[in-house]
Amino acid sequence: MAKNLTTRGEDYSKWYNELVIKADLAENSGVRGCMVIKPYGFAIWEKIQAELDRMFKETGHQNAYFPLFIPKSYFSKEASHVDGFAKECAVVTHYRLKNTDDGSGIAVDPDAKLEEELIVRPTSETIIWDTYRKWIQSYRDLPLLINQWANVVRWEMRTRLFLRTAEFLWQEGHTAHATEEEAIAEAEQMMNVYADFVENYMAIPVIKGLKTESERFAGALETYCIEALMQDGKALQAGTSHFLGQNFAKAFDVKFANKEGKQDYVWATSWGVSTRLMGALIMTHSDDNGLVLPPNLAPDQVVIVPIYRNEEQFNAVSEVANNLMKELRAKGIRVKFDNRDTHKPGWKFNEYELKGVPVRIAIGPKDVENGTVEVARRDTLTKEIMSNDTVVDSVVGLMDEIQKNLYKKARDHRTAHTTSVTSYDEFKEVLESKGGFVLAHWDGTAATEEQIKNETKATIRCIPLDDDNEAGTCMVTGKPSKRKVLFAKAY
Amino acid sequence: MAKNLTTRGEDYSKWYNELVIKADLAENSGVRGCMVIKPYGFAIWEKIQAELDRMFKETGHQNAYFPLFIPKSYFSKEASHVDGFAKECAVVTHYRLKNTDDGSGIAVDPDAKLEEELIVRPTSETIIWDTYRKWIQSYRDLPLLINQWANVVRWEMRTRLFLRTAEFLWQEGHTAHATEEEAIAEAEQMMNVYADFVENYMAIPVIKGLKTESERFAGALETYCIEALMQDGKALQAGTSHFLGQNFAKAFDVKFANKEGKQDYVWATSWGVSTRLMGALIMTHSDDNGLVLPPNLAPDQVVIVPIYRNEEQFNAVSEVANNLMKELRAKGIRVKFDNRDTHKPGWKFNEYELKGVPVRIAIGPKDVENGTVEVARRDTLTKEIMSNDTVVDSVVGLMDEIQKNLYKKARDHRTAHTTSVTSYDEFKEVLESKGGFVLAHWDGTAATEEQIKNETKATIRCIPLDDDNEAGTCMVTGKPSKRKVLFAKAY
Repeated sequence: MAKNLTTRGEDYSKWYNELVIKADLAENSGVRGCMVIKPYGFAIWEKIQAELDRMFKETGHQNAYFPLFIPKSYFSKEASHVDGFAKECAVVTHYRLKNTDDGSGIAVDPDAKLEEELIVRPTSETIIWDTYRKWIQSYRDLPLLINQWANVVRWEMRTRLFLRTAEFLWQEGHTAHATEEEAIAEAEQMMNVYADFVENYMAIPVIKGLKTESERFAGALETYCIEALMQDGKALQAGTSHFLGQNFAKAFDVKFANKEGKQDYVWATSWGVSTRLMGALIMTHSDDNGLVLPPNLAPDQVVIVPIYRNEEQFNAVSEVANNLMKELRAKGIRVKFDNRDTHKPGWKFNEYELKGVPVRIAIGPKDVENGTVEVARRDTLTKEIMSNDTVVDSVVGLMDEIQKNLYKKARDHRTAHTTSVTSYDEFKEVLESKGGFVLAHWDGTAATEEQIKNETKATIRCIPLDDDNEAGTCMVTGKPSKRKVLFAKAY
Repeated sequence: MAKNLTTRGEDYSKWYNELVIKADLAENSGVRGCMVIKPYGFAIWEKIQAELDRMFKETGHQNAYFPLFIPKSYFSKEASHVDGFAKECAVVTHYRLKNTDDGSGIAVDPDAKLEEELIVRPTSETIIWDTYRKWIQSYRDLPLLINQWANVVRWEMRTRLFLRTAEFLWQEGHTAHATEEEAIAEAEQMMNVYADFVENYMAIPVIKGLKTESERFAGALETYCIEALMQDGKALQAGTSHFLGQNFAKAFDVKFANKEGKQDYVWATSWGVSTRLMGALIMTHSDDNGLVLPPNLAPDQVVIVPIYRNEEQFNAVSEVANNLMKELRAKGIRVKFDNRDTHKPGWKFNEYELKGVPVRIAIGPKDVENGTVEVARRDTLTKEIMSNDTVVDSVVGLMDEIQKNLYKKARDHRTAHTTSVTSYDEFKEVLESKGGFVLAHWDGTAATEEQIKNETKATIRCIPLDDDNEAGTCMVTGKPSKRKVLFAKAY
């Protein structure tokens, strides 16, 4: 398989688009803005889902399923929410088609108009809180800790595979609590769960923080987020967790009797990550040869490619390969033996490089003679001859080593592309020259934030939750600032 | 928890509806015909999903994801398919809402009308075959064995939780093959996978067979199905697998070069099961006390309820319970210790009976003294005192015993409610008096099938694939019949 991949240096954006297609991750469909997630891409998403689902359950959450459609009127109930979500969305207005009178095809049946239009969910707070009203009467019903894996639709005008699509897959957690403190603790916990997952499974370092008011989720009192830095110096929001206060409880009249028997509104959180994470995974680790996958999420962690000229050699090589596969599987490694005779070894090498399989093992007749195999790492593109006696333990060790190396590489890149500045000129100069994260003092007003965005295209990614709380003065207005905040151009 | 459940004898239909609500499985939402699947119901569906997904992967299938929306014109491409599916469906006509001029709320923006309406998928053959055209060029690309877990929408006028809802969850397999034989073998294989799953996990005996032409999937040349019998004597189709011939390949122009280099249309299958299986599970095993779950699919297989009057007793009982829980978990049993102090033991007994937990263990101070526990079976409603020394092995054994007992009970019920008849009078009499499956000779024509349906409400559930191929004459017309076919009134 010839790669013909545009390099990152030539055109990062084109490189990304080509890589997603060529590595068989996803493609555009016949429906504007909607993608097809191909089996290989979906296998990675399934790994992401499985780990997150386990983490959600370990923190006491249960899954449930709520309707795809939301009556239009539900959106009007939470004032700030409607502006954020009910605008660019898919609207169902009819429930029947009929044959056209001239027999040319099918048309919408005007007699089958819905009394109230239905919105294809862009997010489910409204339908879920309309349901919670029936589920919550007493403090005994709280906390209610529920998650949903679902498809959602937001009518985006400019779409890109995984990063921004009209339909995408995600999970949305929706929890209800008796107290404000408990809800805030939940929102923080889920931000930490996301950070843990993204760092330890996706090998992507993240910065935890709070969104500014203007970047908050529509309807939230506080939005917690994790922010990652891509190789091109642009930021990507990898997950958000919202403290919703009593906004949705008030909009949908969800009250509970507390231990003293008094009625109070319920406190809420919601939190989500989506197939956008696939975009972050691809853009953080991959190189000009194709995808690079961290072992923890790779559908195939190891692939074995046989090299042979005749059946006798194939049989000898296959015996070694099958034994090795068995031993690796016994150690919990996901390994594939690609014994197809329809493709040459060189084609396969290219293919697995493109698809980011962490370790490739090649076995030829010479190896059989010598009791060795050739082990190639995808992350470093290095090869090593290993003895059959030690290869299993070495490969098991490599899984951990590659996982850590990818994280370290990404972290080093982020460190090299995080700049702390003191003046607005310096700010603009850094954004222009090397990009990345820029830490700067800001006066805390939406007006200054807006001005910076308009003049530089950089947004405040978050107010970091680290301990670096040195006060100063705003780089634009000179007004006091409690601490530096994190800016970047972003996806 | 008081049950207040209508009995099956009083009103089977009402019993079902109440049970689904009271056992916390699902409920109606604010959106017409769309259900909310509650956490307990969803936990059972997750078990169903996990086992089926494993079986699909073991038979070589991969998961992928295709768009929720299908352009209207796609449906017109396969002539018989459009009549079957494109009529009662949700139609997206607009992509934006706007604030009303009078500020009273939001309305559909007439400027945001789609050029071509989008249909919310009722099934995905059309969008998938439109995609397969790009994926299939050569015999090397075949077979293509893909499954999708998704939500689908069919605008049903009369809905019932799980059995018939406007939106439901399902899986749909869509495979492409080089030869007719291979596609037929795949369709048969998936019918067998479904039968295996429904019999061994859901403990529901099924009859495998072929649908008559009039009952076939719209666009299929042959529909394989599995049919189950509910306690009220009505049949329920539990899964279907379709041999689609080259219909969709022709409609979407999907050709491949065979080994000889000649172009040919691809052969197809599709197959699916849905959340309707939840309805079958509930109606097959449950009784007037509530849900009865087979251990293989029960989210909690064992629940331990402590009985105590004071803290000292609670501590002593808890120690025994915690040890027992640990030992059972080590044996792979899903066990919960319900130590809530907000509810009395009697309430809990009722609650777990209603929710169908296969085994309940009660431990009181007397038990602690005697080194015993009380073990109650949900399927037989029997109790037994067991010694702490033997209880773990006994409970492990009970899992298998209950699973088998439920299957046997359902099978005995089916045997008692399957009648072979020779005349149309007898046919009508049996349907009227005891219901169930009725085996009768039929002349193979759609006209006779239609007449029987109109006169008796019974449909041909399937032409069984068993060996009972004795020829005879049609009970209605007297014309020759190759074998008896299976009739029933059905859900």
